Amino acid sequence: MPVYNAPLEDILFILNDVVGIADLSKLKGYEDVTPDLVQSILEECAKLCTNEIAPLNLSGDQEGCHFENGIVRTPKGFKEAYKLFIDAGWQALSGDKNYGGQGMPKSMDFTVSEMLCGANLSFSMYPMLTHGAYEALINHGTDELKKTYLPKLIEGSWSGTMCLTEPHCGTDLKLLRTKAVPQNDGSYKITGTKIFISAGEHDLTDNIIHLVIARTPDAPEGIKGISLFIVPKFMPKADGTLGPRNGVYCGSIEHKMGIKASSTCVMNFDEAQGYLVGNLNEGMKCMFTMMNAARLGVGMQGLGLAEVAYQNAVIYAKERLQGRSLSGVKCPEKPADPLIVHPDIRKMLLTIKSFVEGARALAYDVAYHIDISMLHDDPKTREEADDYVSLMTPVIKAFLTDYGFESTNLALQVFGGHGYIVEHGMEQFVRDARISQIYEGANGIQALDLVGRKLSQHSGRLMRQFFPVIDQFVRDHKENPGMADFTQPLADGLSKLQQATMYVAQKGMVDKEEAGAAASDYCRLFGYVALAHMWAKMAKVSLEKMNGENPDFYRNKLSTARFYMSRMMPNCGALLTSIQAGKKSIMELSEAAF
Amino acid sequence: MPVYNAPLEDILFILNDVVGIADLSKLKGYEDVTPDLVQSILEECAKLCTNEIAPLNLSGDQEGCHFENGIVRTPKGFKEAYKLFIDAGWQALSGDKNYGGQGMPKSMDFTVSEMLCGANLSFSMYPMLTHGAYEALINHGTDELKKTYLPKLIEGSWSGTMCLTEPHCGTDLKLLRTKAVPQNDGSYKITGTKIFISAGEHDLTDNIIHLVIARTPDAPEGIKGISLFIVPKFMPKADGTLGPRNGVYCGSIEHKMGIKASSTCVMNFDEAQGYLVGNLNEGMKCMFTMMNAARLGVGMQGLGLAEVAYQNAVIYAKERLQGRSLSGVKCPEKPADPLIVHPDIRKMLLTIKSFVEGARALAYDVAYHIDISMLHDDPKTREEADDYVSLMTPVIKAFLTDYGFESTNLALQVFGGHGYIVEHGMEQFVRDARISQIYEGANGIQALDLVGRKLSQHSGRLMRQFFPVIDQFVRDHKENPGMADFTQPLADGLSKLQQATMYVAQKGMVDKEEAGAAASDYCRLFGYVALAHMWAKMAKVSLEKMNGENPDFYRNKLSTARFYMSRMMPNCGALLTSIQAGKKSIMELSEAAF
Repeated sequence: MPVYNAPLEDILFILNDVVGIADLSKLKGYEDVTPDLVQSILEECAKLCTNEIAPLNLSGDQEGCHFENGIVRTPKGFKEAYKLFIDAGWQALSGDKNYGGQGMPKSMDFTVSEMLCGANLSFSMYPMLTHGAYEALINHGTDELKKTYLPKLIEGSWSGTMCLTEPHCGTDLKLLRTKAVPQNDGSYKITGTKIFISAGEHDLTDNIIHLVIARTPDAPEGIKGISLFIVPKFMPKADGTLGPRNGVYCGSIEHKMGIKASSTCVMNFDEAQGYLVGNLNEGMKCMFTMMNAARLGVGMQGLGLAEVAYQNAVIYAKERLQGRSLSGVKCPEKPADPLIVHPDIRKMLLTIKSFVEGARALAYDVAYHIDISMLHDDPKTREEADDYVSLMTPVIKAFLTDYGFESTNLALQVFGGHGYIVEHGMEQFVRDARISQIYEGANGIQALDLVGRKLSQHSGRLMRQFFPVIDQFVRDHKENPGMADFTQPLADGLSKLQQATMYVAQKGMVDKEEAGAAASDYCRLFGYVALAHMWAKMAKVSLEKMNGENPDFYRNKLSTARFYMSRMMPNCGALLTSIQAGKKSIMELSEAAF
Repeated sequence: MPVYNAPLEDILFILNDVVGIADLSKLKGYEDVTPDLVQSILEECAKLCTNEIAPLNLSGDQEGCHFENGIVRTPKGFKEAYKLFIDAGWQALSGDKNYGGQGMPKSMDFTVSEMLCGANLSFSMYPMLTHGAYEALINHGTDELKKTYLPKLIEGSWSGTMCLTEPHCGTDLKLLRTKAVPQNDGSYKITGTKIFISAGEHDLTDNIIHLVIARTPDAPEGIKGISLFIVPKFMPKADGTLGPRNGVYCGSIEHKMGIKASSTCVMNFDEAQGYLVGNLNEGMKCMFTMMNAARLGVGMQGLGLAEVAYQNAVIYAKERLQGRSLSGVKCPEKPADPLIVHPDIRKMLLTIKSFVEGARALAYDVAYHIDISMLHDDPKTREEADDYVSLMTPVIKAFLTDYGFESTNLALQVFGGHGYIVEHGMEQFVRDARISQIYEGANGIQALDLVGRKLSQHSGRLMRQFFPVIDQFVRDHKENPGMADFTQPLADGLSKLQQATMYVAQKGMVDKEEAGAAASDYCRLFGYVALAHMWAKMAKVSLEKMNGENPDFYRNKLSTARFYMSRMMPNCGALLTSIQAGKKSIMELSEAAF
């Protein structure tokens, strides 16, 4: 059975030495957030994940969720593990103190999220969805809604969902049909069918709070006529206990490639009572509050799964004896050398390792900027931080899940035939990772968000802030001979990204299909450069710290950074060339010829 | 449920216009093999695949194989479909006429194999393994063994297996422990455990013929002490009927990520009676006869699955309405445009299409050269053809299965969330395709075969023959303005492949780990260039034929060729740069640091 051990040393290195999480204690409300506190929280979370949640991963996959007469049961052990999770306050970690939360930084949520995803992706879905509902409510709900729902969501005794997709309507929400008819008491009656609703029905919590997008009868056409509603499974009474069952029922659950212990439900709303969240016809804005949090969360899924797959592949590569080293026998006392002596095995492992550590740095850097964007004193600093988060959201979602999937596949490959066998658990990581490229906006949509929205947002301000940061870093360190292995590929990658940006901006202005044809390659190029930036920063810190304690840790960082620069960054050139080939060969083939 | 329609038009285009299968009728024994005969055979096979075999694919996956008390039952319908398959003579297609075969060219086997794999990969495994056993016996068996076994294997009433892997011994066969103890009657008693034995036990045939590698008691150490044995499940009597049960039993079947309707067995040999095939201690040579056929066969699995995944993704992309074209509404009468108007959807589909058609051309070209290598009058021509087949075998195995897997994933992505749901069948293609990158030599091993063996074989003769063919093609057509879109990227790719070859040859001679560090990138680069060569040839034919019948077909070929050249070939540059980065960043990290 696979193991999961939270990579605490690396997480702390990034938080403390790269991101600089100590600065968060300067923010109002985070005065107590010291590195020591952060470390002790992470250690507790790591224990829970390793001892309680990870052991349910394989069995959860094999058992799956059960559906009978509208009731969904999660696999054996999930209920008990979930109770441990909420009893220890993990759902409440970054929750607002006014509603019973612990008020810790969002940055902490990201680390917890990485660990949960690595330990058990299906399990992690339930808290993640609750988190999305919390975000929607705290940002857009009325005081009454907040008072009624937030304490329960924060403690985790109630869970949440995001009800967006309908059978005929996935990405294209203007096709939405679910109706919300206003009632005299200010509530709405919601009717329609939603599909692919994660955690739509299950047995972990007393109540389930659905956040549902729907149209009111007189709403304008298209996405401008969409509103967000809250629809509880049980109507809460004034004293906080559960009242009558609402008209929302699970019609069936999906049989899926993976995340089998996460219930994916068809939810039927039949005049279910709901309440407006945010303003009428501004549902898209509210939805994106949930969605952006969810997109970053899905990025963490790619990271978490890549990490756990890596850990198990490394164990196997060190244990499994097969073949002899090309540079001469390494273990003469054994019948063969371990797999890890072979260059191609190392290359696969290093591909994952250099992705994981770079992606972790990027994700935690973005998380840190979320905290800054919310609480910094200076409005300009807040705005810049928010710009950075906006720009990176599609990159994190797409790049981390594409490479997360790729990583789980490489890890499976290290196992050879044994990786294809269910009991080793490696193939589950692949199947679980596959969904992350699809949900919360398929990665092609993320790419369109990046080129179609983020590039031009505020007249290109997001980009104009980001590129000079890298450029400045290169100029600050290019004279340092120890940094040459890193600054030069970074500068080269940035130059290619800038050329690609120019191409997309210029061509895309005249012809949107040119931007569309470039989008996915552009998003991937962006990811390579964003990770290279983090790797260069990690290299800089490592060079500085190499003469102190634990020099091996920093020397290994530099080795991994070198691998990233010399073996991953060459892809940037191919992506730029492909982008510059333009739309012609993509668009010229007639529909009939496919 | 997914559909499968054999791509007959494209197959015939490649066989007739690109490969020139008509030339096969000049070979001794193939005088009757006319293009008309080929076409009518393919049409029959297509019907069988579409109507009988493909409909069992999804149900076979869901039901899986059953194991009880040593007996394996295949899923519902497999027995009947297999009977149709052998009754119509498909197993016998290229079998030796002296043993009841139809004596058709090997090229035909490849087309049948592509169709079977596309229709139902699990089903295709049973005939494929029989084919491997046939190859071992016809090439290395005594006359008596041939007389006893070949007619049954050719008609398909008995099936075959390849028993190589043991629990501790996959790639590294020198670790092999299975024993073969000689008996006074000239037979051997075989004892040991083999794992991952496809078709090791099942209910499709009366008898199962295991080809087993094992060691005799006095055999030299290592792979030079391995011999090949034939071990039937039931001992055949002199009259061809079945005699006593032999001591070989299925201990269990594996639960796997995919190919669930293909039984993957643990086979226990307990003093099972066996007979030597080939010479003592020359088992590796005999094994490679099976293995090379199997490697090409596995390459066809990647191709077949990419094709069927593509077909279903195209249907979905034309039907599913979602979003509006970036260049303006295309279907104003509908609530949204079909997915296929979107550049990123087209890019994913074209990636598969340009891979599939290029890979098909390469595979059939190699198949044609197998026939030439066996039957051509001129020994030099035979040798050259054999060299080409040897060189391309690892490329076809690795490139076609890596891209096959990639293709099934892209096709799943086109379906969005629906691709992740079991009932649509797209996720099964992904799971089924995944094994093809692993078995018959993991793709890393294919890459080592290419750089470690094929590059240096006969002092580099294989390479020295192949590169000038491409070079000559470029020189022959570079003045043709219509060909510029194709000859230039091909020439550029060849140049990069030659630089990479130089690097690998020079560095690898001094330090084998340099070759090992380059291997997988090199093999992939080789694949891109080999397909580009076929695309350039297809473009040439298409330009010539465009003014005749069916001009759209040829115009579309040119469009797809352009996509391949402009959007796939840029990867060659990244691969070369990565290769030239050398082994340092791969080998410097200490084992403990992983």
